[in-house]
Amino acid sequence: MEKTEDKNQQQEEEQVVNPWEVSAKDGGKIDYDKLIDKFGCQRLDQSFVDRVQRLTSRPPHVFLRRGVFFAHRDFNDILDAYERGEKFYLYTGRGPSSEALHLGHLIPFMFTKYLQDAFKVPLVIQLTDDEKCMWKNLSVEECQRLARENAKDIIACGFDISKTFIFSDFDYVGGAFYKNMVKVAKCVTYNKVVGIFGFTGEDHIGKVSFPPVQAVPSFPSSFPHLFSGKDNLRCLIPCAIDQDPYFRMTRDVAPRIGYHKPALIESLFFPALQGENGKMSASDPNSAIYVTDSAKDIKYKVNKHAFTGGQESIEKHRQLGANLEIDIPIKYLNFFLEDDAELEHIKKEYGAGRMLTGEVKKRLTEVLTELVERHRRARAAVTDEMVDAFMAVRPLPNMFD
Amino acid sequence: MEKTEDKNQQQEEEQVVNPWEVSAKDGGKIDYDKLIDKFGCQRLDQSFVDRVQRLTSRPPHVFLRRGVFFAHRDFNDILDAYERGEKFYLYTGRGPSSEALHLGHLIPFMFTKYLQDAFKVPLVIQLTDDEKCMWKNLSVEECQRLARENAKDIIACGFDISKTFIFSDFDYVGGAFYKNMVKVAKCVTYNKVVGIFGFTGEDHIGKVSFPPVQAVPSFPSSFPHLFSGKDNLRCLIPCAIDQDPYFRMTRDVAPRIGYHKPALIESLFFPALQGENGKMSASDPNSAIYVTDSAKDIKYKVNKHAFTGGQESIEKHRQLGANLEIDIPIKYLNFFLEDDAELEHIKKEYGAGRMLTGEVKKRLTEVLTELVERHRRARAAVTDEMVDAFMAVRPLPNMFD
Repeated sequence: MEKTEDKNQQQEEEQVVNPWEVSAKDGGKIDYDKLIDKFGCQRLDQSFVDRVQRLTSRPPHVFLRRGVFFAHRDFNDILDAYERGEKFYLYTGRGPSSEALHLGHLIPFMFTKYLQDAFKVPLVIQLTDDEKCMWKNLSVEECQRLARENAKDIIACGFDISKTFIFSDFDYVGGAFYKNMVKVAKCVTYNKVVGIFGFTGEDHIGKVSFPPVQAVPSFPSSFPHLFSGKDNLRCLIPCAIDQDPYFRMTRDVAPRIGYHKPALIESLFFPALQGENGKMSASDPNSAIYVTDSAKDIKYKVNKHAFTGGQESIEKHRQLGANLEIDIPIKYLNFFLEDDAELEHIKKEYGAGRMLTGEVKKRLTEVLTELVERHRRARAAVTDEMVDAFMAVRPLPNMFD
Repeated sequence: MEKTEDKNQQQEEEQVVNPWEVSAKDGGKIDYDKLIDKFGCQRLDQSFVDRVQRLTSRPPHVFLRRGVFFAHRDFNDILDAYERGEKFYLYTGRGPSSEALHLGHLIPFMFTKYLQDAFKVPLVIQLTDDEKCMWKNLSVEECQRLARENAKDIIACGFDISKTFIFSDFDYVGGAFYKNMVKVAKCVTYNKVVGIFGFTGEDHIGKVSFPPVQAVPSFPSSFPHLFSGKDNLRCLIPCAIDQDPYFRMTRDVAPRIGYHKPALIESLFFPALQGENGKMSASDPNSAIYVTDSAKDIKYKVNKHAFTGGQESIEKHRQLGANLEIDIPIKYLNFFLEDDAELEHIKKEYGAGRMLTGEVKKRLTEVLTELVERHRRARAAVTDEMVDAFMAVRPLPNMFD
């Protein structure tokens, strides 16, 4: 039943969002309101932003106050518990399918670092090298290598080693983690995963087997070296909204096997340079700014490929102003220019035609270059020993301090 | 395509043999010739028995010379390699779904012990506690407990601890074993497992995920503590023929991921006391002799429940003789009375009506009681420390000596 319903719904809506495909209706923009309705999550409104500020006694992250993280599931329960003095843990992850991360990949990690610092809570980061081995035509060894390379980029985001456990599935699956995988798998029918993920009979069984692997880091008992005896610890998952299907499934199963449902805080997709019609794609290097791009690369990509809402001639631009709704430099600045006053100024001047596209692009290039240079320096300082240390299966005695 | 073909075939034939169901056409006997044709394995003829005797310089096991192990896949390749001086390893297993084993459960282990002793080769024994947790309504903890209890019965069969590694999936899945699971899963479509195992959309995904778990002990690289650097080591799997579907799948995948196809040597089903129409069932205690049965239990079950080919009156029996084809005491003696001359004598006298059913049952009771008592004594001597020792992940430096 569910299978048919979901499929029909997708065909009618022509907006497909799942972990492997994000495409808007008729190549247009993703309709996030419809997505919230369809997925059944909630909008993260201003009251949450205010509450987080109050509870953490620090300014909310730019991604929070500008609505980059725009949807949630049970985030209120996490905050209620936190207010009562109960802690929680964070869980996020990455599928290591490419050497170099682009800016969109950094967003959940930058935000997760803020949450870790603000709430002073432990964090587990899953590198799904097994998933990438099964979905992409990559060897086990290559996926493991990419997992370690990506771990360096993740560590470069500044996570606290005394509160952070990074693991790859090929290394860590087994023991308590595998037991939870089996418990989850027992509760989910094949028809159900077809409804949620759209698998077909020609898909290999590795795909069908994978959802429990991404589900179980939501349960504290999957990490006995961290959370032994803390089966009631709540979990908060910061992620892009395309990962929601995994956690809808997880939340459905959780109470049946004796765990809290994980809470979620979910982000918009970071738009491609060519325009806001989906996620950036690792297969088109000109669709994204990579953390490995040089200052020259960034300047070239922004100038050559960033889709703008500026007018075709200076005269017309001065007269009509830029269409900020479709302007990628403004969208990128909305993510990465932290100064609210400056951003407002640029939007006002650019929208009124007093500022030209070239000037906005120049400012964006500066902002992105600084971000990428800072990341590159931080990554260069990450040694193999640090990767080993973050990935060691070890207790974290000070993780709640 | 395959899915439809297999299903039609099953419906036409009305003989269903898979790891979870064994039922003959119209409740009759399993047609093993048809099974060999359908599965595509080979009959194990006398030339194999002779060759094994020659290669091992010892009399072939009663199960071999009486055709209990009656079918194989590539057993000739194993013997060719052995003759060239190459060793191999044995792999067998058990799904720990009940406390007490019945005689049918002992058969693969008794035969595997003979193979280990005769060929002087290492052995891995998989306890699929995860499978039983997923198929039966049993908790993880209960399945783990049953796995250890069953391990004691298996150890009681006399395996050589210097050549034997016993593992449970909940303990051992992970690392190299999990990597092989992923490699196998990538090569098998959902349609394929539906064709082989008959899963439906309402089955949970744990079932769909399981076949790779039973497949990968066929590959030496799943046991780096034993076979590191020996990726070319061949594997021989002694099992009942209902397990063939798992290894058909495994053999299909093996060359695609760089391993030898495992060879198989496959047994008939041990008949229920009530007659030869399938496997014994743990859910009907009177259908089987358990290794926990007392001498009195055995006497009662044989006298009360063993289906015989004797005639309804002594006069008629003396006149017509017993129908040995359907006689369960004779079938059981064929498994467990090692003295060929005595067995021939009993069959001749009983078939001619000179020996009565009661006399045959009495002899069977003696044979089974001795077997069960011997097993009970051996099992009582198995300590928890011995279970730990057999199940320790450790190298076996003398496993080929």
